[in-house]
Amino acid sequence: MIWQRNSLLSIEDLSSEEIIFLLKKAKSIKEQKEKSGQVLPSLKGKRIINLFMEPSTRTRVAFEIAAKSLGADIISITGEASSLTKGETLKDTAMNVQALGADAIVIRHSSPGSPLFLSRLVDVPIINAGDGAHEHPSQALLDIYTLQEKLGDLRDKKITILGDILFSRVARSNLWGLLKLGAEVTLAGPSTLVPREFEELGARVTHDPNSALEGADAVMLLRIQHERQQASHFPSLAEYANVFGLDSVALARMKKNAIILHPGPLNRGVEIESEIADSHRAVILQQVANGIAVRMAILHSCIIRQEGDPS
Amino acid sequence: MIWQRNSLLSIEDLSSEEIIFLLKKAKSIKEQKEKSGQVLPSLKGKRIINLFMEPSTRTRVAFEIAAKSLGADIISITGEASSLTKGETLKDTAMNVQALGADAIVIRHSSPGSPLFLSRLVDVPIINAGDGAHEHPSQALLDIYTLQEKLGDLRDKKITILGDILFSRVARSNLWGLLKLGAEVTLAGPSTLVPREFEELGARVTHDPNSALEGADAVMLLRIQHERQQASHFPSLAEYANVFGLDSVALARMKKNAIILHPGPLNRGVEIESEIADSHRAVILQQVANGIAVRMAILHSCIIRQEGDPS
Amino acid sequence: MIWQRNSLLSIEDLSSEEIIFLLKKAKSIKEQKEKSGQVLPSLKGKRIINLFMEPSTRTRVAFEIAAKSLGADIISITGEASSLTKGETLKDTAMNVQALGADAIVIRHSSPGSPLFLSRLVDVPIINAGDGAHEHPSQALLDIYTLQEKLGDLRDKKITILGDILFSRVARSNLWGLLKLGAEVTLAGPSTLVPREFEELGARVTHDPNSALEGADAVMLLRIQHERQQASHFPSLAEYANVFGLDSVALARMKKNAIILHPGPLNRGVEIESEIADSHRAVILQQVANGIAVRMAILHSCIIRQEGDPS
Repeated sequence: MIWQRNSLLSIEDLSSEEIIFLLKKAKSIKEQKEKSGQVLPSLKGKRIINLFMEPSTRTRVAFEIAAKSLGADIISITGEASSLTKGETLKDTAMNVQALGADAIVIRHSSPGSPLFLSRLVDVPIINAGDGAHEHPSQALLDIYTLQEKLGDLRDKKITILGDILFSRVARSNLWGLLKLGAEVTLAGPSTLVPREFEELGARVTHDPNSALEGADAVMLLRIQHERQQASHFPSLAEYANVFGLDSVALARMKKNAIILHPGPLNRGVEIESEIADSHRAVILQQVANGIAVRMAILHSCIIRQEGDPS
Repeated sequence: MIWQRNSLLSIEDLSSEEIIFLLKKAKSIKEQKEKSGQVLPSLKGKRIINLFMEPSTRTRVAFEIAAKSLGADIISITGEASSLTKGETLKDTAMNVQALGADAIVIRHSSPGSPLFLSRLVDVPIINAGDGAHEHPSQALLDIYTLQEKLGDLRDKKITILGDILFSRVARSNLWGLLKLGAEVTLAGPSTLVPREFEELGARVTHDPNSALEGADAVMLLRIQHERQQASHFPSLAEYANVFGLDSVALARMKKNAIILHPGPLNRGVEIESEIADSHRAVILQQVANGIAVRMAILHSCIIRQEGDPS
Repeated sequence: MIWQRNSLLSIEDLSSEEIIFLLKKAKSIKEQKEKSGQVLPSLKGKRIINLFMEPSTRTRVAFEIAAKSLGADIISITGEASSLTKGETLKDTAMNVQALGADAIVIRHSSPGSPLFLSRLVDVPIINAGDGAHEHPSQALLDIYTLQEKLGDLRDKKITILGDILFSRVARSNLWGLLKLGAEVTLAGPSTLVPREFEELGARVTHDPNSALEGADAVMLLRIQHERQQASHFPSLAEYANVFGLDSVALARMKKNAIILHPGPLNRGVEIESEIADSHRAVILQQVANGIAVRMAILHSCIIRQEGDPS
């Protein structure tokens, strides 16, 4: 396969071949790093702008490290959209960033679809680092990378995504990616946060905590994000923890070697019992580490492009 | 000519030879970049501190890119003056930055004259990146660079600066620079924002929107900056747009190939009609791109100095 | 001596041999820099994370410069602890930073003991850049470095630390370090800020401004830090300045060539008369400059380790 996109806007867009391409490339980068301590500075001389118009530390820093690990120069522009643009349109902001000589723009924005919108207006690659409740493709790719690393081929594997599905761009991107790779995806959580409509996309939907994890190969816990909820969708954090928090009883319903993912930051005692989060079943820190290789693969693919399948 | 200044404090200070020196140097840097993709890392091992005691993103990032493009290391220190200094005098802050090993300090400060003040107290080059309503020399140089690129020799060219002249350091720096290069400068806008006193400096002053653009080779629009105005100087943004906003009727008064500049961020529908901002007459993004080469020329000249005319 | 620690948590922990090791290493770095303009990029390929969970500019920037001067890559993560962690535990934050591939974490945190706590949970070196009112080891090392540079061997030298001892991590770290190197330390200031309990650690305590400086070789002034005081511990800044501010009368009580240190930022007219701060007796800017070499020595020692005494 030849990678031909110059932007990464969503997982929904990608073919399964494209997803596999990025995952293989991330794997080869990770192996190269482990073997020789360094990877080739293949983006040396390239300038990447991190345009974070919604507060974020983790994703921003991970992209910074990924860019620098490839020898690129990266400058982060952060702040609320209003203070960054001072009344300027988003298009004008992006055109300005392009005029500064950017070879790629990594953008986080509260408005769903803004990366797509920009990709039609500017020539430089646009990497979506999270657009409202729409998608967060680099997060899904690192999640899927970690799942593959632990479970092998994801075809027919049972993956449960548990929590605040309604407001989660992480859930949306993972749902698209996992279905494309042939996994069976269950979306679970309180009925206020897990609408039946997701069944139309091919997922199983359940509001029953008992059946949610039955026989699952992996569970992806989502952070309860107060900041994205307009109103309270469950009585209290304690009640959520009591019904949907991952404890040893819930864990026992899953397959014997089932693994646990979480995009962080972790609310111990809410989404997950603290002891389980520290057990070898949780692969949360491997996700973080894999996120660097995955983002290196994304940046390299979109900026360089003229390459065949690295396998 | 030999460049002998180690600081760039204002355009008023500079001789026309010095302005031409910087513009030529920027041109040679831009051509080198276009030819070979890179420029020589002639500031490698140099450490530049961006001391931004007034909020700014654009100018700060442009200096960061300029410094890195020359191989220098640049660290930005940003924040309100009060939180950065914690009661310390500005002199002490600058002395501390010098003691950290800075080879140059790029400073933005709300207080007019602060870069000059500092240049008398510390040994390292001081680059004025905007001091209150006084001057913004790097902006004027990139504006003039862009004017020259499009119009050729500026002698006797008719340049109109339109908008909030009274509070604009961009207008002041451009006025000095354009007059020194022999252009005919008209300052235009509401009488509350364009005082007659500017005539004494050699500009034509008009409050008549019709005559402002008559036969002009270029118009430099200024952003209506609410934050610098102590009181409202015109009834409303809509009324400003109606009287002074650049629309196709106003454009038709200018010369046939007249160009439009704007320092950004652009308020579409206020200073300029949106369609005109997107037309080939507007060179707003070229200004942004030229700003990198111009700032590279400034940093290199002030830090290295021992060089003859690059022409 | 072989340096064997991978973290620098406090001065109290260190043996006098370890303190001397770091000071000698800083000296050799400073000399190398002065001789050849550069030092070897011995941390090239290393990634350092500056985790500043309490506002700071000076110490953060000094560590950034120190890291870059050794060729390391450093990324600063700054903000209030609450916004950085979003409910995550400090341990989880550190584990995440480690998973990002950090080779060392420089941490500032409002909670005393947090660097020690972290050093027991993560494998990467932890450098304490200030933990509440507990310790600020890199500041003490640069103070002691500067004292040695000016006074030679500190054995039996009379050093007075004057000001807000109670809330000062700088005072605590210096007290430990100076005593270990054989100096005679006097802690002085208002009785509300200089508790008698410090006598048990081996210091002389006085609340008498006249006796505080009598025959001293050096005085280390502390900044009056309103932000760390829960209540007012003296009537007014003017009264503090009047009684404890360093003026020419107070200076005359010290030895003939006694020197004056201050960690900055300086409140001129409060802790010190402005003229004295500008005199050759004050070594405040040398402290800042020495802070780079000292922090280079700290980072290099903790990250590399397998080295003998550089002397």
